[in-house]
Amino acid sequence: MVEKSRIACERLKAKVTDAEHAASLIRSGETLAMSGFTGSGYPKAVPLALANRIEAEHAAGGRFQVRVWTGASTGPELDGALAKADGVEFRLPYNSDPIAREKINRGEMEYFDMHLSQVAPMAWQGFLGQIDTAVIEVSGIRPDGSLIPSSSVGNNKTWLDQAKQVILEVNSWQNPALEGMHDIYYGTALPPDRVPIPLVRPDDRIGEAYFRCDPDKVVAVVETSAPDRNLPFAPPDEVAGQIAGHLLAFFEHEVAKGRLPANLLPLQSGVGNIANAVLAGLLTGPFEDMTAYTEVVQDGMLDLLTAGKLRMASATAFSLSPEAAAGLNANMAFYRDKLILRPQEISNHPELIRRLGCLAMNGMIEADIYGNVNSTHIMGSRIQNGIGGSGDFARNAYVSIFVTPSTAKGGKISAIVPQASHVDHITQDVQVIVTEQGLADLRGLSPKQRAEVIIENCAHPDYRPALRDYYRRAREHSYGQQSPSILSEALSWHQRFVETGTMRA
Amino acid sequence: MVEKSRIACERLKAKVTDAEHAASLIRSGETLAMSGFTGSGYPKAVPLALANRIEAEHAAGGRFQVRVWTGASTGPELDGALAKADGVEFRLPYNSDPIAREKINRGEMEYFDMHLSQVAPMAWQGFLGQIDTAVIEVSGIRPDGSLIPSSSVGNNKTWLDQAKQVILEVNSWQNPALEGMHDIYYGTALPPDRVPIPLVRPDDRIGEAYFRCDPDKVVAVVETSAPDRNLPFAPPDEVAGQIAGHLLAFFEHEVAKGRLPANLLPLQSGVGNIANAVLAGLLTGPFEDMTAYTEVVQDGMLDLLTAGKLRMASATAFSLSPEAAAGLNANMAFYRDKLILRPQEISNHPELIRRLGCLAMNGMIEADIYGNVNSTHIMGSRIQNGIGGSGDFARNAYVSIFVTPSTAKGGKISAIVPQASHVDHITQDVQVIVTEQGLADLRGLSPKQRAEVIIENCAHPDYRPALRDYYRRAREHSYGQQSPSILSEALSWHQRFVETGTMRA
Repeated sequence: MVEKSRIACERLKAKVTDAEHAASLIRSGETLAMSGFTGSGYPKAVPLALANRIEAEHAAGGRFQVRVWTGASTGPELDGALAKADGVEFRLPYNSDPIAREKINRGEMEYFDMHLSQVAPMAWQGFLGQIDTAVIEVSGIRPDGSLIPSSSVGNNKTWLDQAKQVILEVNSWQNPALEGMHDIYYGTALPPDRVPIPLVRPDDRIGEAYFRCDPDKVVAVVETSAPDRNLPFAPPDEVAGQIAGHLLAFFEHEVAKGRLPANLLPLQSGVGNIANAVLAGLLTGPFEDMTAYTEVVQDGMLDLLTAGKLRMASATAFSLSPEAAAGLNANMAFYRDKLILRPQEISNHPELIRRLGCLAMNGMIEADIYGNVNSTHIMGSRIQNGIGGSGDFARNAYVSIFVTPSTAKGGKISAIVPQASHVDHITQDVQVIVTEQGLADLRGLSPKQRAEVIIENCAHPDYRPALRDYYRRAREHSYGQQSPSILSEALSWHQRFVETGTMRA
Repeated sequence: MVEKSRIACERLKAKVTDAEHAASLIRSGETLAMSGFTGSGYPKAVPLALANRIEAEHAAGGRFQVRVWTGASTGPELDGALAKADGVEFRLPYNSDPIAREKINRGEMEYFDMHLSQVAPMAWQGFLGQIDTAVIEVSGIRPDGSLIPSSSVGNNKTWLDQAKQVILEVNSWQNPALEGMHDIYYGTALPPDRVPIPLVRPDDRIGEAYFRCDPDKVVAVVETSAPDRNLPFAPPDEVAGQIAGHLLAFFEHEVAKGRLPANLLPLQSGVGNIANAVLAGLLTGPFEDMTAYTEVVQDGMLDLLTAGKLRMASATAFSLSPEAAAGLNANMAFYRDKLILRPQEISNHPELIRRLGCLAMNGMIEADIYGNVNSTHIMGSRIQNGIGGSGDFARNAYVSIFVTPSTAKGGKISAIVPQASHVDHITQDVQVIVTEQGLADLRGLSPKQRAEVIIENCAHPDYRPALRDYYRRAREHSYGQQSPSILSEALSWHQRFVETGTMRA
């Protein structure tokens, strides 16, 4: 396909260069603010060129490291390459790259794991320091120099505004029909100048379709043509299907009780195979005219749009399998007016989540018998990805739901434990827990009431006797009886796993 | 002082009765929704009469228990009397009464500890069940039957709206000049009908000065004349003064850096002696024209108003010493237009806290070396009071600050521990920790960076070597190095305290 240039601005066309030259404009010690959210819309050429440059520098005995900020997770060409080159000193706000994860968990990279709604506001506050260079993927440049966003919005508005210099990647792989799908709200401010955000329906457009960008700050424009990360999703397995079934039954029950509208409330769904299975379950459920107000549009959301069950979805990024990405690109005319991509400080804003009354569905690593949820730290110390937007949504949701298989590692890890080894979501923010075993509706229950429901409804039968035994003895011996515990045993399941490879006694 | 009747509505005047008769209209098993927030504006006669009735019933071998909902903490005539009578089966959303606390910690009362902003919305959702009887203290009844609120607003609007029947206590001890101070917002709704809350300054009035009340639902009106709980505050001691000093220096530093306006941002302050000391410190600080957007007006806030340092304060309740209450009552004309009392779903609303950019200052029980904060559970299991509004404010604040002396119980408890025994505020929501030892500015730091600052700046010198030793060994032996831990020791300090009465080795 011959395509006309994506760069319609003469001033910026004059700055087209190659990735190596662009990377040469970055110095060691800089703070780089890059685009990218759940593997979409991240720069694909400059970070690779920078990684090569860093490796050469290190091979020559020098030292070259940068601080890397993004929207959320990126792809191997960014996090993977830079981590492999030992080029990242400090990373925020989210990572799912395996090489970077390994560096972090070996203590070789500092990682600041943040609520995704707070990244941009905290950057404006100034305590995170100055952004030196923004590296932003766009899908085109308009004649006036404004930018057509790519497959994620993330924090790009803020990065472009705050950076001292800007490097653009114009990716011709991105569908030109993305133009017009974005809604970039420029009404944010620091207090005391904040005003209500005028969004009352997930469908509302409150901003502009383009990023504003000072062309004087742009030091390089690099043309690319490379796909987003686009990892395949596993088809829903039996466990995921059971989880979806329990959750759909809950929604039907709440509608029957008059506690949810027949078309539910705006859905928020975490990313991953279980979340995708829940969305697949909604395909055959009784709910029509649904909406989504979420972080990420993944395969299941597209399927719901295709089937006409979902009226529209608001998010900040795509996260698609290669097949779904191809389907989206082939049928963009159908999807285009049903999707809105917003800055992550808007997609995840507590004000909007509370107002809209989202039904938040997020995955987790483990929950304890009282309903404290660990989303981030395996065995309390080893980071998996990060909290992402789960805290933004869970605290402000109409109903906050956490889902997980009841066991992991072939049954060697129980997802229900005496005490969470790390807490990301406190009991007040966890209203429903679902495993393939069943659903625990924790709303309005005291900790002891929660414990009984979680153990009986959610824990795997293999682990229930030990949980019951722990809880029974805690009721006898605990220092206090609000949330009974046995301090010497509370973390013993995790310790046993670390020492023996299984939580089983 | 001879005073004209506080009951100007003839229909409701006809329902005046005594507390015993009013209490006789309540049946066992009911859900009672009562007024009251931090010991102010709670009903003082009907709960006592109910407690007497319950005691008589129990003495006669019967069983009589109720479910009790309030705004927040009340006084001995409510929580104390009902708990002593063994009359409370279930309690939400907050308690600070020592008798009720003891029942809870013996496992004899179920307690659902909630974010205070969520109580009313969750009551509207319906999963908490129906409210049978509302028992509400007011300071007067107007000719049209609308109600002049008392010294707290709390959830009264919701209780009056949702209860099947209403009992009013009209307390002539409350200053008649309270009239007009309240701002009752009636624009709330359930999703999908929620709209932006039109408040952009702490000073904004967005509602009405009175509660609407269906007179047909009122089954009894009881006249009382009794003071609020009004506990004395301890004068700031040396430790509190040192904490205040560190915090003021931080604010001055942030103003100098241009990260805070010269008049700061709206202050939120938890209740208690340390919080009061911080407010006292602001009396002599350089900040003028300050505002407060907080839950509670306590002595220190009044002093700041008196001194002209604070322009106005928005809250949902008073919590004053007897002396401060007398001073407020004597000078109501001066304070009246400088104070606004709102429903707690508005005083604590995430939308408004994030918009206003509150500086949140809350007390805590302990923090761990990574900055997870425990506000509620002593040694992980024994409830102290409850999370209250701290979660509403901490997650949405411009800067979220937690303060505590570095030790408790004469040095036998360290407020800085290897791992928090219970988590109410996750590291993402804890930006500054202050003890008398110093201040830890944790903004933008990874967990390991936070650990070093917290140990060196905040821990008591007696506990620093053991914390350093734990952290050093965790860095060597932890399963992962994002938040290094030693699972077998993480809670050992708490266990040692329970077993030996001290955390010292």
